[in-house]
Amino acid sequence: TSSGVFLLQMGWGDLGAFGEPSKETPNLDQMAAEGMLFLDFYTANPLCSPSRAALLTGRLPVRNGFYTTNGHARNAYTPQEIVGGIPDSELLLPELLKKAGYTNKIIGKWHLGHRPQFHPLRHGFDEWFGSPNCHFGPYDGTERPNIPVYRDWDMAGRYYEDFKIDLKTGEANLTQLYLQEALDFISKQQASQQPFFLYWAIDATHAPVYASKQFLGTSQRGLYGDAVREIDDSVGKILKHLQQLGISENTFVFFTSDNGAALISAPKQGGSNGPFLCGKETTFEGGMREPAIAWWPGHIPAGGVSHQLGSVMDLFSTSLSLAGLQPPSDRQIDGIDLLPVILQGKLIDRPIFYYRGNELMAVRAGLYKAHYWTWSNSWEEHSKGIDFCPGQSVAGVTTHTQEEHTHLPLLFHLGRDPGEKYPL
Amino acid sequence: TSSGVFLLQMGWGDLGAFGEPSKETPNLDQMAAEGMLFLDFYTANPLCSPSRAALLTGRLPVRNGFYTTNGHARNAYTPQEIVGGIPDSELLLPELLKKAGYTNKIIGKWHLGHRPQFHPLRHGFDEWFGSPNCHFGPYDGTERPNIPVYRDWDMAGRYYEDFKIDLKTGEANLTQLYLQEALDFISKQQASQQPFFLYWAIDATHAPVYASKQFLGTSQRGLYGDAVREIDDSVGKILKHLQQLGISENTFVFFTSDNGAALISAPKQGGSNGPFLCGKETTFEGGMREPAIAWWPGHIPAGGVSHQLGSVMDLFSTSLSLAGLQPPSDRQIDGIDLLPVILQGKLIDRPIFYYRGNELMAVRAGLYKAHYWTWSNSWEEHSKGIDFCPGQSVAGVTTHTQEEHTHLPLLFHLGRDPGEKYPL
Repeated sequence: TSSGVFLLQMGWGDLGAFGEPSKETPNLDQMAAEGMLFLDFYTANPLCSPSRAALLTGRLPVRNGFYTTNGHARNAYTPQEIVGGIPDSELLLPELLKKAGYTNKIIGKWHLGHRPQFHPLRHGFDEWFGSPNCHFGPYDGTERPNIPVYRDWDMAGRYYEDFKIDLKTGEANLTQLYLQEALDFISKQQASQQPFFLYWAIDATHAPVYASKQFLGTSQRGLYGDAVREIDDSVGKILKHLQQLGISENTFVFFTSDNGAALISAPKQGGSNGPFLCGKETTFEGGMREPAIAWWPGHIPAGGVSHQLGSVMDLFSTSLSLAGLQPPSDRQIDGIDLLPVILQGKLIDRPIFYYRGNELMAVRAGLYKAHYWTWSNSWEEHSKGIDFCPGQSVAGVTTHTQEEHTHLPLLFHLGRDPGEKYPL
Repeated sequence: TSSGVFLLQMGWGDLGAFGEPSKETPNLDQMAAEGMLFLDFYTANPLCSPSRAALLTGRLPVRNGFYTTNGHARNAYTPQEIVGGIPDSELLLPELLKKAGYTNKIIGKWHLGHRPQFHPLRHGFDEWFGSPNCHFGPYDGTERPNIPVYRDWDMAGRYYEDFKIDLKTGEANLTQLYLQEALDFISKQQASQQPFFLYWAIDATHAPVYASKQFLGTSQRGLYGDAVREIDDSVGKILKHLQQLGISENTFVFFTSDNGAALISAPKQGGSNGPFLCGKETTFEGGMREPAIAWWPGHIPAGGVSHQLGSVMDLFSTSLSLAGLQPPSDRQIDGIDLLPVILQGKLIDRPIFYYRGNELMAVRAGLYKAHYWTWSNSWEEHSKGIDFCPGQSVAGVTTHTQEEHTHLPLLFHLGRDPGEKYPL
């Protein structure tokens, strides 16, 4: 069974199925209606790089090395200049799937290191079309080059130079390029009857937000909504392609996000975390609870809903399981195999750990969440207008100083109080 | 064509279809999947009585008399002692439907006056099972009697005395009684082949919140969620009953709320307004934007979504239209006929007016909303712990003093900023 993982940066509240008020994601909503909605699904860190490392290794960032000790509770930010990356000692999902004859492709943002030794084709992927980092820029090319776009080993060009992004109009056809890559790869694999792992981890809706011309101005939500609509359309086309090629029943597909919506970029460039508190960079629900949908026609009963506590790291173990492989036994794996949940409706008891950098900020067990540390961002940042929780303020919770509660954790019941407003 | 209106006090964020994170309303979600979801549907006032008067008259509270001049921007609260009620000069929906041979029944909370001259059977209803007001109490019977429950003209008993509500356990079987009333009425009408108007306007989930024993402890959300689940179950049973009797294609059903979730009662007794600002009593979206679903198998295409700006007052005009009647021409009617929207997908240009008492606080036109006045509640109330916007604070918007902006209205784009956090 092949696996496809859609990994975006969209908030819980960005999908119609999860309550976005303008309901402009008909394809994702349809995917949910045909598949299973995970309501309690989490990323492993509220920032892109550590989350993506966790997904591909099945391990928490504190184990796979994607954390930093540059500051307490500081998430591992990976600008172009960073010299580190995914260690060779880590076993990535595509490396393992190769043993079962899979062809592995990454489309989009790698984020696990810029230098040659970290290249995705050195870590199990057979093909790559995308960039090592976000499409920040444009840069003037002297102090900092623009982010390159790779086709496999070779640089195909650079953002803004060869892959245009018009920051004034918000127009860029990148999502269309990434869609076409996915369709072509799937066709090729179907023709060769080889199982595959497709990791569609594209840049949109990360700021600076863009959409193709045909989607500009089509949503009620502005440019961000246009980008969401283009992703939604792409997901729909990819799923339809699987069906038309007759391989949808042999392809397990999962949609989720690497962190909550970046409220610092809202409302023009940032999304919505629905009823949850705060966003990206924080360990409140808005930073780490993600929209999540499993789709596998003929196997997953349509319209299912699961309360299983899930994690992006589970996609590692689940994809291995689908390939008939065992996870490595020489190291701690934090992901679990979700197939019993998805196929038999089981609920597996497991906690969720909320890390910020290498600090364990909070733990969820069942419906209870204990915060050992609370912090939104510093007064210094906040005074500059950087706000991780715009419009939200819960006394003693969304603190601008790092508050330790390890002796008496701040406890919330996420069923009665999903917004983390009423400490018990 | 018969009409059924479910009028609850549930927030936008209380239904799975609208993004409640535990998704425990399978029947309402199914109703939405089979019918049409209204995403921009409003009540006429953020408090029960004026909203209900508006629904039944098709007119704004400032026209039908359900406002007060006791204080600026004060909603018309109707305690037991109130001597006023719906004026005889108002024409109520059931009065008009009688002319087309309808039998009209109200189940639940009337709220348009306690005194005999305001009795629902004097205003067009043929049958009533329910109470003139909320189930507040218990009272000791000396200074204030407990709220009576009527069967038609006669008092059937009183809350807490004859109709038990256990405030300690939260157990009460009232929703089951109201469900049975609805099923029996529908059976009777089907047998007599008479068209009907059923107004199922029950007390739950208004505080004090209750649920029947079989629903207690069944939700992730505590007692409030249990009550929501019981309502959801009841709606499902009523719709199924219509289908089993073979009259679903002749019965137009609408589900909505009379005001946003009462956040003052949260988290134990209050619901969720999802991503919207504040709640009941306020003219922010959380106070007045309501979950809304139209259902009419064989007529409404399944899975539809409408961006029509709608109002509870439209149920007046729409129900008349279904009965082949014209709205009265001797007075201003604020509701519009939604059938072209529902059946032909049309969008009708109309504004939404947000009143608090008799003060026009805000107006929505298209995706823009202009606030002429902003206010949450007074510092005096707030200092006593009464909070209409818990966990939310938008500078200059959720003000605790009444702020006038009539010269330069505070403008929001509800597409890009449904949470009213970023004034333009």
